[in-house]
Amino acid sequence: MFTSHTVPSPDDAFRAHQAMGSGREFDTIRLLMSRWGDLTADIGDDAALLPPRASGTRVVSTDACVEHVHFRSAWLSPREIGHRAAAAALSDLAAMGASAEFMLVAFVVPESWDAVLPDVADGIGDVVREVGARIVGGNLSRGATFGITLTVIGNAERPVSRRGAQPGDLVLVTGTLGGPGSALAAWLDGQEPSAWARERFVHPWPRIAQGQLLASHGVTAMLDISDGLAADARHLSAASGVWLALDAQSLPTGPDCAASDVLASGEEYELLATLPPELLPALQQTWNSTTHGRITVIGRVEAVTAAHSKLEPLVTPVPIAGHDHFAEAAERVENPPRIGEL
Amino acid sequence: MFTSHTVPSPDDAFRAHQAMGSGREFDTIRLLMSRWGDLTADIGDDAALLPPRASGTRVVSTDACVEHVHFRSAWLSPREIGHRAAAAALSDLAAMGASAEFMLVAFVVPESWDAVLPDVADGIGDVVREVGARIVGGNLSRGATFGITLTVIGNAERPVSRRGAQPGDLVLVTGTLGGPGSALAAWLDGQEPSAWARERFVHPWPRIAQGQLLASHGVTAMLDISDGLAADARHLSAASGVWLALDAQSLPTGPDCAASDVLASGEEYELLATLPPELLPALQQTWNSTTHGRITVIGRVEAVTAAHSKLEPLVTPVPIAGHDHFAEAAERVENPPRIGEL
Repeated sequence: MFTSHTVPSPDDAFRAHQAMGSGREFDTIRLLMSRWGDLTADIGDDAALLPPRASGTRVVSTDACVEHVHFRSAWLSPREIGHRAAAAALSDLAAMGASAEFMLVAFVVPESWDAVLPDVADGIGDVVREVGARIVGGNLSRGATFGITLTVIGNAERPVSRRGAQPGDLVLVTGTLGGPGSALAAWLDGQEPSAWARERFVHPWPRIAQGQLLASHGVTAMLDISDGLAADARHLSAASGVWLALDAQSLPTGPDCAASDVLASGEEYELLATLPPELLPALQQTWNSTTHGRITVIGRVEAVTAAHSKLEPLVTPVPIAGHDHFAEAAERVENPPRIGEL
Repeated sequence: MFTSHTVPSPDDAFRAHQAMGSGREFDTIRLLMSRWGDLTADIGDDAALLPPRASGTRVVSTDACVEHVHFRSAWLSPREIGHRAAAAALSDLAAMGASAEFMLVAFVVPESWDAVLPDVADGIGDVVREVGARIVGGNLSRGATFGITLTVIGNAERPVSRRGAQPGDLVLVTGTLGGPGSALAAWLDGQEPSAWARERFVHPWPRIAQGQLLASHGVTAMLDISDGLAADARHLSAASGVWLALDAQSLPTGPDCAASDVLASGEEYELLATLPPELLPALQQTWNSTTHGRITVIGRVEAVTAAHSKLEPLVTPVPIAGHDHFAEAAERVENPPRIGEL
């Protein structure tokens, strides 16, 4: 691993390093460190030391972003690639209700990417700065395909899993959905996405502050929307052993997005959470006094019934009135909630 | 990130996952989890929770291992590839004097590697089991080049940096050196390495227990030998602002390895440390009562003098009597230490 302290001074003559070639690895690390500036915490060596916390639980996650798999260079600038990778990784901390404290950045860099690597680093830095984290180390390697593997570490006073949803809870989602899916669909069609959809795709922000606020206000389960609202609602419902009844009319849908698009739109990095209804007023009050963006009640948690079980024994589907794919399931849900935006 | 808890049950019908394709990502994660068995700690969700520690400092490091860069498949079995990747990553914790507690495993997997991925996982598991750590999560992605990025987390009661070496300290090294360099040279020559050298290359073990013991016995600086003894001794001397005088006659040299080979042999994953001489007897006593393998005093730490400074202002060279490359430096060191094996 590299940290600021494992980088020798520029005048050193070094034995060729297997991974990157003579001196160049260290030159590159120095360049990255200078781009990140005060975002790097000089607390490391062969490994980084994490200062102890008086309370809470350390939370850690790792996430990779690989060229041709997670993005295409034609769609994104290098800085946007870095931004998205950082947002995606940090979003896993938001989903736990954790703060974002530290990041380790492992790059695999083909030579053709050398010139734009500092711009990728800037994009990572933009997000790290926004959430108040520090870059404490990383790794630099050559390789045929550009890739970024980010490890993020935070602290949660009250970590929220995806397993605690209870029948009767409300289902909430942050933000306005549909943009990333809409942008992706446009690009795959050879079209340019709308400015709104493109911005949502290229500049997602991890909902760290929102996740912490939701955790402190008693949400029972939470995850981030990376696979799409429908798929992630299934993940939450399967983990909690409940049924999520969502209301298509209540979805916070972006401009020119159909409810079906919103359900399938992945990489939103918004938060989906469940909350006992009696805790809603307090959350609403705090939320409205801050600049945390939109939050919407989109459904209700129900117990899994025999009817649900017959439908799909282990995955609880997300029934949406008016959405064909879930039509059969929707028929089985009585009184789908229609609860508006907070 | 995946953890045991983010893997849905096998009968789930999932929306195709962008990174790995419909259902297959989860099938693969389940397969990995089953291979790792009790090595996986079921403490996670979108991110893993690290249980608090009563004392010490959390230490974290990330390390990548990429096909064609860090290894060639012709030289190593898939299990050996996993073993080496895990040992290399965990060695950074050993270098800090830390325990090894948790690992996050991020794979980039071309389809051609699907069949052998479980064997790679077994190799990682072999090392994780040996050091008593747990696998708490990871990431799985498609990509054109096989790669493993491992993040490791441990705990250090007394973290040791590479910056604390003091004039008068002894220089110690664990193990027997030269094997990996000798194996690599043989392969690059189109030859088969000796059984000893090959074994040292394919099955390095992170010196976690040794690093902890050295830390508890007062070593002033430490790092692991990944770039070769000469280069890593330079790293340590530059970080500490001292001169390391090594004695070529004292090096723990493997069979058929010249001192010059030992100096250049990288990826040893042995520990290089400095110790005040008055602490040597206590270390020797403890070391000899355990099965920590070989440890050898190979030199002495000296203050940087004007003569040294003239030679190379910022990098302190490692003078070795009889080794041409360092001949000039060696001449400037009076009374090179000749201190034998413990």
